Amino acid sequence: MISVSKALHIINSQALILREEEVSLNDALGAVLSKDIFSTINMPPFRQSAMDGYALKWSEETDYQLTYESQAGNANLYSLKEKEAVRIFTGALVPDEADTVVMQEHVEQTGKGLSIHKMPSKYANIREMGEQIQAGDIALQKGAVLNAAAIGFLTCLGVQNVSVYQRPKVGILVTGNELQSVGSLLRKGSVYESNSTMLKAALQEAGITEGVEILRVSDDLESTKTCIKNLLEKTDLLLISGGISVGDYDFVKEALTDNQVDELFYKVNQKPGKPLWFGRKDSTCVFALPGNPASVLTCFYVYVYPLIQKWKGYQNTSLERIIARCTSKLPNKSGKTIFLKAAISQKGEVTPLQGQSSAMMHTYALSNALICVPEEKELIEVGEEVECIKLTP
Amino acid sequence: MISVSKALHIINSQALILREEEVSLNDALGAVLSKDIFSTINMPPFRQSAMDGYALKWSEETDYQLTYESQAGNANLYSLKEKEAVRIFTGALVPDEADTVVMQEHVEQTGKGLSIHKMPSKYANIREMGEQIQAGDIALQKGAVLNAAAIGFLTCLGVQNVSVYQRPKVGILVTGNELQSVGSLLRKGSVYESNSTMLKAALQEAGITEGVEILRVSDDLESTKTCIKNLLEKTDLLLISGGISVGDYDFVKEALTDNQVDELFYKVNQKPGKPLWFGRKDSTCVFALPGNPASVLTCFYVYVYPLIQKWKGYQNTSLERIIARCTSKLPNKSGKTIFLKAAISQKGEVTPLQGQSSAMMHTYALSNALICVPEEKELIEVGEEVECIKLTP
Repeated sequence: MISVSKALHIINSQALILREEEVSLNDALGAVLSKDIFSTINMPPFRQSAMDGYALKWSEETDYQLTYESQAGNANLYSLKEKEAVRIFTGALVPDEADTVVMQEHVEQTGKGLSIHKMPSKYANIREMGEQIQAGDIALQKGAVLNAAAIGFLTCLGVQNVSVYQRPKVGILVTGNELQSVGSLLRKGSVYESNSTMLKAALQEAGITEGVEILRVSDDLESTKTCIKNLLEKTDLLLISGGISVGDYDFVKEALTDNQVDELFYKVNQKPGKPLWFGRKDSTCVFALPGNPASVLTCFYVYVYPLIQKWKGYQNTSLERIIARCTSKLPNKSGKTIFLKAAISQKGEVTPLQGQSSAMMHTYALSNALICVPEEKELIEVGEEVECIKLTP
Repeated sequence: MISVSKALHIINSQALILREEEVSLNDALGAVLSKDIFSTINMPPFRQSAMDGYALKWSEETDYQLTYESQAGNANLYSLKEKEAVRIFTGALVPDEADTVVMQEHVEQTGKGLSIHKMPSKYANIREMGEQIQAGDIALQKGAVLNAAAIGFLTCLGVQNVSVYQRPKVGILVTGNELQSVGSLLRKGSVYESNSTMLKAALQEAGITEGVEILRVSDDLESTKTCIKNLLEKTDLLLISGGISVGDYDFVKEALTDNQVDELFYKVNQKPGKPLWFGRKDSTCVFALPGNPASVLTCFYVYVYPLIQKWKGYQNTSLERIIARCTSKLPNKSGKTIFLKAAISQKGEVTPLQGQSSAMMHTYALSNALICVPEEKELIEVGEEVECIKLTP
């Protein structure tokens, strides 16, 4: 049995092979760049007016001849002469000879000319070519997360496709004779199988929206071995639920060993989720999770989520951890790290919820955080600060 | 011109018609229940062993006859006699006559019998039928957000479909003669149109992953009117970018008025995004956003995002706002609320980034927060606490 921090250390120190793929920017939200992106254009691509107003060559003069109009999108460049001004709009091409744009609010039109009430400083209201970025410059570096702003920025540079780290291929294997699919009347002695649906949703929260392969197997060594073999060949990450305890019908550990998956740890000093198993075969990482739904989900958020984020190329891989004041007294006589389903208020106080048993999911559905009570901590007092893992949404 | 808080108040006080739809639980992550859900089964559906061990009727005796095995998933109920015990596994049916399960670690097998070293308290290690929830009880209330735990919980109750609030149908109209689609060489005087791609990604961050209709229109009153009319008929929420300023070719305001969209506000005392316009026609809300990408995105996060969350049925509609210590001095002589692209560190300090101009997107791509400096605040000192909006991811 190892500690939670040791288990996290083993997981975080796995060297992963990050595969790259080229995707359309339209499909790249939340992905991480696997290559630097250089701009192929200047941005702005030309000298641009930042205002609706009048472009001219700055002087002490107040009266100018109005000669031309430069609307946004107009490609013609007017050649401006002395004491001439051009009517111009935001985003439009500024004539080469002009160095200043006067706001329309500071000008009065006088027949074919204009009179300036308030001349701005020279060079005002012009966005210089390449002011934001120049052709050949780096736009975003490898490792940048593609948020909406990044997607907007790259699109304005004309980028259509980007190289990103591929999300891991995930397989789920659910074990247990008692498990029945939803959609038919429950047989005596059976329960509805929910771990695969729940894990699929949790994977979706972690950005894995497609390609998750799910298999179900009864408590039988040979079938379990075959399913594991099958999924090991196709996946980067294999999540197994159930069958990892010490019962006579728990075949997962043996089936993993028979498939040459190396055990990296088995059993963590925590509650829930003590019988967590983690191992690896070649480039595939394997978690054998307990069978109780709440244990499955807690192990997912604490251990699986960071590994997925690492595969996706993220620097910060863990779910956000914050310190909050606890509204209840929390004794911990177990000597284990305990994870408690909890609600963090908008004021930043955290309250453990009723129903902490690992078979109980109702409380989990209402939680937005997990309180982490460290193994060495025997008591959290009311008002004491405690570490919490924030859950989505 | 109105204040930011007044603008938010007007948006938040819009009465929205929330439509309901029935969806598969598999497609419901992040949706909000529009009806209470009642359980049709007891959970557990039968008396279940919580351990691998031996089920028996509790007594002072230490020796029992071993008569039967109850594996998980087995539907047969053994009728237990006096001084008999049944081998049992986690999740399996407990015989009616048994009231206690003894952990296998506390028992020694002796031929056909067993000897108990350590008898637990009566009723130990049995999950009673309906202990988690009983048939007819409420499982989750209207308004609950369907996170992975909720999806797991409902699946284990046999639920397949749920009634949720429908996400709003969104239309995007992008205006501007200077805008060119990516994929061809940039013409002189043109820039690549990026606002629609960026808004689509921002909508995706807000859970609107499909059905977004995008139209582009040149700076022409009649075409703008027609596009707006077309989108008003099909959408709950219409986002327009550009054409809302005071230039001779800004036709959006007039086209909205001609389409009988009632103006609820125009111009907000803020930077960026001053010319923000908000209105409504029947059940459709309309934002006319400025044209500069950074203004568009800031207005989206501050004003559009909360309205979308309200439509989706969320109680907390705003992006998370936190207080952080500012690492730089921030003067604000403008008398406006200013939103600054910024990076919050893991220590919770916030640093405004270089390049705050509303045409600059590079900085935005690297931001994870917006600092909000209130209009009445002339100076934020180094180390002073300031409100920040946290951005995804």
